[in-house]
Amino acid sequence: MPLPAAFHDIAKRVNNWGRWGPDDEIGTLNLITPEVVREAVATVRTGRRVPLALPLQQDGVQTGLIPGRVNPLHTMTAINHEIFGPGTVAHTDDAVTMGLQAATHWDGLTHVSHSGRLYNNRPADSVTAQGGAAFLGVEKLPPIVTRGVLLDVARVRAGSDGWLDAGHVVTPEDLDAAEEAAGTKVRAGDVVLVRTGQIRHYLAGDKQAYGFPSPGLSIRTPEWFHARDVAAVANDTLTFEMFPPEVPDLWLPVHALHLVEMGMLQGQNWNLEELARACAEEDRWSFLLSAMAEPFTGGSGTPVAPVAVL
Amino acid sequence: MPLPAAFHDIAKRVNNWGRWGPDDEIGTLNLITPEVVREAVATVRTGRRVPLALPLQQDGVQTGLIPGRVNPLHTMTAINHEIFGPGTVAHTDDAVTMGLQAATHWDGLTHVSHSGRLYNNRPADSVTAQGGAAFLGVEKLPPIVTRGVLLDVARVRAGSDGWLDAGHVVTPEDLDAAEEAAGTKVRAGDVVLVRTGQIRHYLAGDKQAYGFPSPGLSIRTPEWFHARDVAAVANDTLTFEMFPPEVPDLWLPVHALHLVEMGMLQGQNWNLEELARACAEEDRWSFLLSAMAEPFTGGSGTPVAPVAVL
Amino acid sequence: MPLPAAFHDIAKRVNNWGRWGPDDEIGTLNLITPEVVREAVATVRTGRRVPLALPLQQDGVQTGLIPGRVNPLHTMTAINHEIFGPGTVAHTDDAVTMGLQAATHWDGLTHVSHSGRLYNNRPADSVTAQGGAAFLGVEKLPPIVTRGVLLDVARVRAGSDGWLDAGHVVTPEDLDAAEEAAGTKVRAGDVVLVRTGQIRHYLAGDKQAYGFPSPGLSIRTPEWFHARDVAAVANDTLTFEMFPPEVPDLWLPVHALHLVEMGMLQGQNWNLEELARACAEEDRWSFLLSAMAEPFTGGSGTPVAPVAVL
Amino acid sequence: MPLPAAFHDIAKRVNNWGRWGPDDEIGTLNLITPEVVREAVATVRTGRRVPLALPLQQDGVQTGLIPGRVNPLHTMTAINHEIFGPGTVAHTDDAVTMGLQAATHWDGLTHVSHSGRLYNNRPADSVTAQGGAAFLGVEKLPPIVTRGVLLDVARVRAGSDGWLDAGHVVTPEDLDAAEEAAGTKVRAGDVVLVRTGQIRHYLAGDKQAYGFPSPGLSIRTPEWFHARDVAAVANDTLTFEMFPPEVPDLWLPVHALHLVEMGMLQGQNWNLEELARACAEEDRWSFLLSAMAEPFTGGSGTPVAPVAVL
Repeated sequence: MPLPAAFHDIAKRVNNWGRWGPDDEIGTLNLITPEVVREAVATVRTGRRVPLALPLQQDGVQTGLIPGRVNPLHTMTAINHEIFGPGTVAHTDDAVTMGLQAATHWDGLTHVSHSGRLYNNRPADSVTAQGGAAFLGVEKLPPIVTRGVLLDVARVRAGSDGWLDAGHVVTPEDLDAAEEAAGTKVRAGDVVLVRTGQIRHYLAGDKQAYGFPSPGLSIRTPEWFHARDVAAVANDTLTFEMFPPEVPDLWLPVHALHLVEMGMLQGQNWNLEELARACAEEDRWSFLLSAMAEPFTGGSGTPVAPVAVL
Repeated sequence: MPLPAAFHDIAKRVNNWGRWGPDDEIGTLNLITPEVVREAVATVRTGRRVPLALPLQQDGVQTGLIPGRVNPLHTMTAINHEIFGPGTVAHTDDAVTMGLQAATHWDGLTHVSHSGRLYNNRPADSVTAQGGAAFLGVEKLPPIVTRGVLLDVARVRAGSDGWLDAGHVVTPEDLDAAEEAAGTKVRAGDVVLVRTGQIRHYLAGDKQAYGFPSPGLSIRTPEWFHARDVAAVANDTLTFEMFPPEVPDLWLPVHALHLVEMGMLQGQNWNLEELARACAEEDRWSFLLSAMAEPFTGGSGTPVAPVAVL
Repeated sequence: MPLPAAFHDIAKRVNNWGRWGPDDEIGTLNLITPEVVREAVATVRTGRRVPLALPLQQDGVQTGLIPGRVNPLHTMTAINHEIFGPGTVAHTDDAVTMGLQAATHWDGLTHVSHSGRLYNNRPADSVTAQGGAAFLGVEKLPPIVTRGVLLDVARVRAGSDGWLDAGHVVTPEDLDAAEEAAGTKVRAGDVVLVRTGQIRHYLAGDKQAYGFPSPGLSIRTPEWFHARDVAAVANDTLTFEMFPPEVPDLWLPVHALHLVEMGMLQGQNWNLEELARACAEEDRWSFLLSAMAEPFTGGSGTPVAPVAVL
Repeated sequence: MPLPAAFHDIAKRVNNWGRWGPDDEIGTLNLITPEVVREAVATVRTGRRVPLALPLQQDGVQTGLIPGRVNPLHTMTAINHEIFGPGTVAHTDDAVTMGLQAATHWDGLTHVSHSGRLYNNRPADSVTAQGGAAFLGVEKLPPIVTRGVLLDVARVRAGSDGWLDAGHVVTPEDLDAAEEAAGTKVRAGDVVLVRTGQIRHYLAGDKQAYGFPSPGLSIRTPEWFHARDVAAVANDTLTFEMFPPEVPDLWLPVHALHLVEMGMLQGQNWNLEELARACAEEDRWSFLLSAMAEPFTGGSGTPVAPVAVL
């Protein structure tokens, strides 16, 4: 069953293939220019730092629904080991096994494909078991330090202590309303953080409710982001877009539009709760954001420990 | 064999136990205040971003010498999987197994102990196989965004294309010289990056030469950092300090002074080559540094993808 | 809270410390002599082979209840990789991460300790993060090939299609009844397989019901096994013994008696369903059993792929 | 570059596709019939058990040459953890990450493909990252318990304390000579163990020498095995066949003939040293062999802990 015309119509309008040359592997991160970085830095007022990552632990957000996407297994490989003899300085080491998309993460540009293609017309089969992503791997991403803007849709639609219902499709109109409430215009090179409040289920101990049904970004929002030339988008859900899907039988269309058509990273499982409080307290919804990819060679995703500096 | 008096004498002078209260678990990261962050942000001029992490890959810096500290094993758990049926959007996922101290990383405060103690007098046996670090775990670290200063000892001592010999002990006098060459004073809350050039061996394909013998920080340098109230120190070696050790049979004294006595993070395997070139080009050796810990619950270390913004 | 007198009374009666010398690390596996092996071989009549392991897969028996005991994560590290050039023979490789006690396994002799001690008076702290089990590791176990006897308690107590209720404590009287029904006497060096039928829950897709509450071996059964000088015991449950425990607040007493006091391996999550059918069809309840430990150096347990040859 | 005619000529002669039906997924293991098992059991004389697996440890045979084929990383997930409170029975758990082909192992039938095909004409692309081997996975293998025959080519060609040179191609004539020296005829359903002595390099601490150059089985030997309807073949080398290859630029032909054409498992890194001594002592070169695959769902290989019972 091919993807429907409704998808392809949007795809054409947001497509960035070739925009930064035939060899481009970083997509909309091209939009983070030195000037954008300087402007991002200029947003800092108080120096308040807000971390956005969930703890990396076995009791993470994954429930086993997605085979292979395992929560972090943290193990010790040495504990107070007096490797140089009794009474010497002792060392402790640890190791981890985890899915790169399991916790707070960026979806890399190879995380989804459609019609056999990746962003910038790379063949999907350029991703292999032995090498991972031959093109578009996360190790090639430039440093992600830019202006962040929080679009607190939960606050706008459900009040300052509220969150969106599981069936809430986040629309361009929601984004407009949140942007207006924020009093700042989203600009080229920004990373937009869309808060739904859904992560409160996980923080309250209910992983199942967190996973799905879930509110998420509408198939109509990629055009909104495209029009503003956003560098990347992240939110506080497991699925990013609606799940079950907004359009029956059309699965992961927003993933495909963002990653394949636009070449734009997506972030998931970002904890925006403290940030929402901080922004509300300071009545300021833009900030310096650092959200560095861990450079896994050939990686289709990467854990990220983002920080907002207000 | 207990640690020698020479160690304990220094330990007394640099000890920070109790300085931030009996329950403190973050040590010198307390020194990164909002004011420090604002000043750090104010160092940015051009918006140039320089990443400092090595690629995370199986062909990493580890040689097998340290059991359990394994290079990243990156594996695919799905490749273009049309999970929702033929013709649908396909997903690709990956997973990793790696030592937390294997690549570009921060040593967490529990990474070494001596005399049965960790920083702030926590018992070493509070680290367990089942829970990792009950205290002082890397998940408790505040966001590491502050001013960075590059002390390019290699440049000062060996010229702009040079690097330090394997037997070179980086002394306080070396740091003084590099600080003077940098034209900026190291201040409270800074993260100091000390460049030896040793990582060029790895970048040139010679892991064995990279590992050891290695130049590294002298046992006399912790007092230098302590006097300036540095927040953390990182360099471009596998061992951080001299290896074989500066004082015969005194193993890892700098680790013990930094981590246990001072409560100060150390960074290792940081690639400072591009940064050195950038700083030389701009003739400016301080910058905004973001070097976020991945918040592994109970972790004794963490991979880090640092970025300098000039 | 120390272990109760009721435990210690039994412990004294079944204790094997010193029985095979102060340096012994294999416990009751000493009882598998060449003669026992020859007799085991002599039980084979038809050559019918019955495997007893569950598939090793992510959808395994673990539910996340026991932190760290993760189901197998099977990943591909190469798929049809023409490593020597196009058109050459291509190779496929895979890797796994798993808990050694996660699937069908043997508990090694260091899997539990009590009062700071392991079997044969080894100190519990001889197990370390850096080396695993310094003594009693599974790599030291001799080949486990001996006579197996199926004691089908489920059949005896619940009929040929039945299984034991969750609250059923398997008593010495149950074992006597099953032994009598089997028409064979348990002998020194035998491995006894005790069938409860509990694993049917897992095979039917209900992991939660499989886990607990669970029938299991009574605290009174170690004496039964000790009296017969059994080499090892395995069953078809996750917990081996009753869970919740038979004696309130006395957790894992059977583990402690078998592993610590007797030095006797335990097997868990063994699939005895096909074997029960085969034994019933052939009306013969003893057979040649091969159940080799994978020799993980320092291991406290090991997956096992047992086979019964009838 | 397609495979040469020399390969295809042999391939035609040894091909077993369709022999056990179009749906067969176990190949020559079909040859282990109940009668073969009974005869295997009948070879046991003394009950002496000889294990054939190398220890599973980080210091294993892999040198990093084959990306992803990692030596076992054994980590502790709990050490003497009093999970139910102080003074209770404490538990110790461990976990492992390892390549399935890293240590003593069976190559599964999907371990190599050629010309896009697997054994029995299955498409090579039926192996996927998300599911592993859809067909021919090691979880489908029947229990491998049969007669084993040691063909001690090292002894025949290099004397009782000798081993084959790195450049020694093991030919059908070598096998004939070893079979004659053994005084037993290889029969249908046997597993043949071919000893070269190469593993002595690893046992002596020289992994590099063990790896390659290596003696190994000639491209002419599959016909020898085919003519005798052997069930499987294992040896004591890393590469199984000659490395560098016997025929220049023809890589892994024996793998392709055994696995793809014949549907016959191969074993590698089997430690045959103790077995060779035992056979020489008892002057008997056949025995009962148990060499169970660990049933990894979708696995292309499996660690194995084989045992010979003499």
